[in-house]
Amino acid sequence: MNDPVIEDAVRRLSNWGRWGPEDEIGTVNLITPKRRQEAAELVRTGEMHSLAIPYDREGPWNSQKADKRLNPQHLMIQTGTDVQAGVQRVGDVEYIDGWGYADDLVCLCTHGATHWDSLAHAFLDYRMYNDRPCTLVDVDGAQRNSIAPLADKIATRAILLDFPRALGVDALDGGHPITVAEIELTLEAEKVEVRSGDILLFRTGYMSRVRREVGWEGYVYGDEPGPGMEALTWFHQEDIAGVATDTWAFEVTPAEVDSIFLPLHAVGLTHMGLLVGENFAFDAVAEACERNSKWEFMFVAPALPLSKATASPLSPVAIF
Amino acid sequence: MNDPVIEDAVRRLSNWGRWGPEDEIGTVNLITPKRRQEAAELVRTGEMHSLAIPYDREGPWNSQKADKRLNPQHLMIQTGTDVQAGVQRVGDVEYIDGWGYADDLVCLCTHGATHWDSLAHAFLDYRMYNDRPCTLVDVDGAQRNSIAPLADKIATRAILLDFPRALGVDALDGGHPITVAEIELTLEAEKVEVRSGDILLFRTGYMSRVRREVGWEGYVYGDEPGPGMEALTWFHQEDIAGVATDTWAFEVTPAEVDSIFLPLHAVGLTHMGLLVGENFAFDAVAEACERNSKWEFMFVAPALPLSKATASPLSPVAIF
Amino acid sequence: MNDPVIEDAVRRLSNWGRWGPEDEIGTVNLITPKRRQEAAELVRTGEMHSLAIPYDREGPWNSQKADKRLNPQHLMIQTGTDVQAGVQRVGDVEYIDGWGYADDLVCLCTHGATHWDSLAHAFLDYRMYNDRPCTLVDVDGAQRNSIAPLADKIATRAILLDFPRALGVDALDGGHPITVAEIELTLEAEKVEVRSGDILLFRTGYMSRVRREVGWEGYVYGDEPGPGMEALTWFHQEDIAGVATDTWAFEVTPAEVDSIFLPLHAVGLTHMGLLVGENFAFDAVAEACERNSKWEFMFVAPALPLSKATASPLSPVAIF
Amino acid sequence: MNDPVIEDAVRRLSNWGRWGPEDEIGTVNLITPKRRQEAAELVRTGEMHSLAIPYDREGPWNSQKADKRLNPQHLMIQTGTDVQAGVQRVGDVEYIDGWGYADDLVCLCTHGATHWDSLAHAFLDYRMYNDRPCTLVDVDGAQRNSIAPLADKIATRAILLDFPRALGVDALDGGHPITVAEIELTLEAEKVEVRSGDILLFRTGYMSRVRREVGWEGYVYGDEPGPGMEALTWFHQEDIAGVATDTWAFEVTPAEVDSIFLPLHAVGLTHMGLLVGENFAFDAVAEACERNSKWEFMFVAPALPLSKATASPLSPVAIF
Repeated sequence: MNDPVIEDAVRRLSNWGRWGPEDEIGTVNLITPKRRQEAAELVRTGEMHSLAIPYDREGPWNSQKADKRLNPQHLMIQTGTDVQAGVQRVGDVEYIDGWGYADDLVCLCTHGATHWDSLAHAFLDYRMYNDRPCTLVDVDGAQRNSIAPLADKIATRAILLDFPRALGVDALDGGHPITVAEIELTLEAEKVEVRSGDILLFRTGYMSRVRREVGWEGYVYGDEPGPGMEALTWFHQEDIAGVATDTWAFEVTPAEVDSIFLPLHAVGLTHMGLLVGENFAFDAVAEACERNSKWEFMFVAPALPLSKATASPLSPVAIF
Repeated sequence: MNDPVIEDAVRRLSNWGRWGPEDEIGTVNLITPKRRQEAAELVRTGEMHSLAIPYDREGPWNSQKADKRLNPQHLMIQTGTDVQAGVQRVGDVEYIDGWGYADDLVCLCTHGATHWDSLAHAFLDYRMYNDRPCTLVDVDGAQRNSIAPLADKIATRAILLDFPRALGVDALDGGHPITVAEIELTLEAEKVEVRSGDILLFRTGYMSRVRREVGWEGYVYGDEPGPGMEALTWFHQEDIAGVATDTWAFEVTPAEVDSIFLPLHAVGLTHMGLLVGENFAFDAVAEACERNSKWEFMFVAPALPLSKATASPLSPVAIF
Repeated sequence: MNDPVIEDAVRRLSNWGRWGPEDEIGTVNLITPKRRQEAAELVRTGEMHSLAIPYDREGPWNSQKADKRLNPQHLMIQTGTDVQAGVQRVGDVEYIDGWGYADDLVCLCTHGATHWDSLAHAFLDYRMYNDRPCTLVDVDGAQRNSIAPLADKIATRAILLDFPRALGVDALDGGHPITVAEIELTLEAEKVEVRSGDILLFRTGYMSRVRREVGWEGYVYGDEPGPGMEALTWFHQEDIAGVATDTWAFEVTPAEVDSIFLPLHAVGLTHMGLLVGENFAFDAVAEACERNSKWEFMFVAPALPLSKATASPLSPVAIF
Repeated sequence: MNDPVIEDAVRRLSNWGRWGPEDEIGTVNLITPKRRQEAAELVRTGEMHSLAIPYDREGPWNSQKADKRLNPQHLMIQTGTDVQAGVQRVGDVEYIDGWGYADDLVCLCTHGATHWDSLAHAFLDYRMYNDRPCTLVDVDGAQRNSIAPLADKIATRAILLDFPRALGVDALDGGHPITVAEIELTLEAEKVEVRSGDILLFRTGYMSRVRREVGWEGYVYGDEPGPGMEALTWFHQEDIAGVATDTWAFEVTPAEVDSIFLPLHAVGLTHMGLLVGENFAFDAVAEACERNSKWEFMFVAPALPLSKATASPLSPVAIF
């Protein structure tokens, strides 16, 4: 790299070594047991919401312009119609009339729907998080920095930053870099202060607008609103444990620097070890926040323990 | 059906209609917001544990004797070794030296690792839960009773029933039907009382013993310990919201009645609408319980919102 | 069915029972050893052409409007970049520097590129070819009428019916039903006479035009030229062994009757047991025919022996 | 490499540059149009046989000991049981009673059943055939030396070398290196002489013996009979266009040199550019040869045009 903006950001924001040479989880270290316990204390009513989009063939992917990513593919391996027809058979088991079962499989692109990125997802200067060579991510998978360690860690306070509400718009526009001033204004409107170990949920309104106006086919690879380098610096200062967005790319696109594609992935994932979530659905939880006048809640979103994977499909929940 | 044992169990235990004609989630209805809030109150230290087995090619499936189920298959679609070789390319994006990313996909049999069954999984007399015809589960998936509604509901108190500990054995033997007396003895040893809306985690020790003595290849289709019809009746009386086991089949095999294969699936899933989890890993959480002298904890295990699926891969967590 | 046109066609054209009650291959029975031997006699120069489209993610499918069919998906499981990086490993084999291998898999929708339909593909009045119930095609596959028996039969004379050439157009228009008169005119222009056991290759020019003008995304589900009921009757009279087209649906769309979608599939596959091929690429072979002034050639196109499949990916060849 | 046996073999047998710097098909160049025409002349009766094993979950793979290769996986996406139940639906098409269709997909490991290896399959000293770097085979596939060019070339004379018949045994033993003397003795017994451009089919009897005595689970990774370095030298001298075997590894295992695993792949594929086929089924064709007292025939086995693949599933046929 010889982009001075990125070089500077790397110098200021790198967390390599901060949690020891063996660390593979980066800012998730900021989610301490204490933070989990405090998050549980936020629970008042037990109201619960999902922050995942539906997993099916409808979206979010647009395979006409895309690389190898596909929408979730669901296939049946046993059906009730076979039971009705009296033809279901499995091994040596003898079936009686009307007894039987249904079974299925799913093929999921790990980054293809609501997901966390692992720290094996992005490389800069041939390295990934914590100064590991990119060759540790081979065709057999991520030998280090995989998503698997995130199966028993992610429960903490989350704050929904409802930008459209705070800024009085329907949705942030594509290409809009979210400023620190906008973040602070939104926090103020929501009467909440950030703290080390928080996860911030950036509701830009972008996904809902695109789905409403165009459909999923306009979603990926479009110009998106999102945090830029200034916000990344602020995440670092505030010791934010993770950020998730209702966009495909997490960061503003087109980016403020154009020396590389998706520079916040390079600085944020590769150097900060930042937990990044994409394709989250925030409308239901936003309504709940509004109704409860409360934009902080217990947030539980463990990854599936997918050995050597660079991301994990996710079913994140907010508990009020 | 004309097995009087099963007919009698169906008559006594059926929940069809109990939560209205549109209900698709059965005993999960017993997890009220109040129960979630009480579960959150159990959190003292924020210690967190995963109850999932690793998702990879190693197990639990044994494809030599199996039907169409396979172990989780993980495949890369972008690698760091390609970045190192300078050959990664994606669409029109121009890559600079050492910048790049890794990406992957997984193919998961929904019942193939740690999972919840949906109420579209089991049929008896051509019907599934809530008197729906089995033909609603066609090759396009479960049009009703799918797993998707379980994405925003499952957070409640769980009790780990550590049978080997209470009964002074290494593991329950294959074919051992767990009695109500054993359940009550274990609850007593753990100084906890069940309550409506609880999820019970049946640690039989079976999975660990098989893995230790044989490996995954001895696991599925073997004789397993597990609840029988008596226990099912007790679940109904106590308004248990769900049960998960460290076995493949959930219920004792061979079963006490042999008119059909897996009779507790037929009575429990089809008629009670019972939430059933299989292939859970309980050793880590059992150690934590022992250490904390506390076998109850906040348990969060939302399904992935897989449209029309009959089960969901899962990353369940216990929070102390 | 109570469409008199279809009822009449079924009555006139049905081959149920013609080759015995156990038959599963229909008109492929017309390809006798004698016909194969005669086809071999046509070989003069040994010039060889492929009639398959490329198998890759580019097409022919358009997953934005489609059902569950996808374009061929190719995924690597071992790469040369891993060898270069010195990280390839397989089981216990010790690798030395620079030795290694590459490996991969493909996921193919059987009807998704160049293929033969099997006689388990289409149903009418709950029956498939040779009066078998549609319930023989369950989620485990086609228990009868699968594509597997076509692995050792399809080598015969084929005639390329180059309609654009004979009719002086670039391509037949979508919705154009190819008449018997047009077929006979084309045969005459090509100075060849049909004979029992021939396979007819219908070059409409449609695929090439769409790819040139729109791209693959305009291909499937569009209005296509193709044979209609009159041509089907003529195939029957002439004892044609099979027909393949450079279109997605084989038959003219919209069809001449609208009581059912794709009526020639119902009458042709279900009742005649006609061998039908779709998504064939005819441009290269058409140039060769023109150059050689010869539109007949040895045609070899065995199916893959895919147990219980309803179609087979194909690599058909013409040998001059 | 610094194994003198391999270095010597490379020096003697390399075909790099022989067919020009752009060549990607190696010894397949020896199949000239003339050779195809002569093969067609061998056709006397039109009798036809398949040389492929069945493509299904039964074999040949043994996923308990294997790497990532799986047996062919077949999955339905539309079924006749859905038609019978009256629940089939596709897009906006309105279905009438009893009309409908069946559809499916297959997932095939390209080297997982009967197949040709492409010249992108094996590397030695970081190079593949025709002095290309192994980094041309990345996670996107084989940018050069893929299987796709073999879609319109492979039709030639094949000779079935029926070793068990000629040598008076049931099958060659595992670990038996087939000598040139044995090849010549077999050719003599079959009264046929090799010629440039021939494909040799090595019937060792191994696959049939293992399936009969153990089943598919004993097949892969076992000690196999097959050609060794001496035979490879003879292939080169005789300008053989390709070799296929009824074994998994093509070559004798354990190999005569142990400096690398599968040395004939390294010398044969990487340096000679030899066409290699594996997992062929020869019993049916062997019976036909015996019956016809003729071990040569027209052999047609085009690859599927799988873009960038390192091998292709295959439906090879013999025509007498």
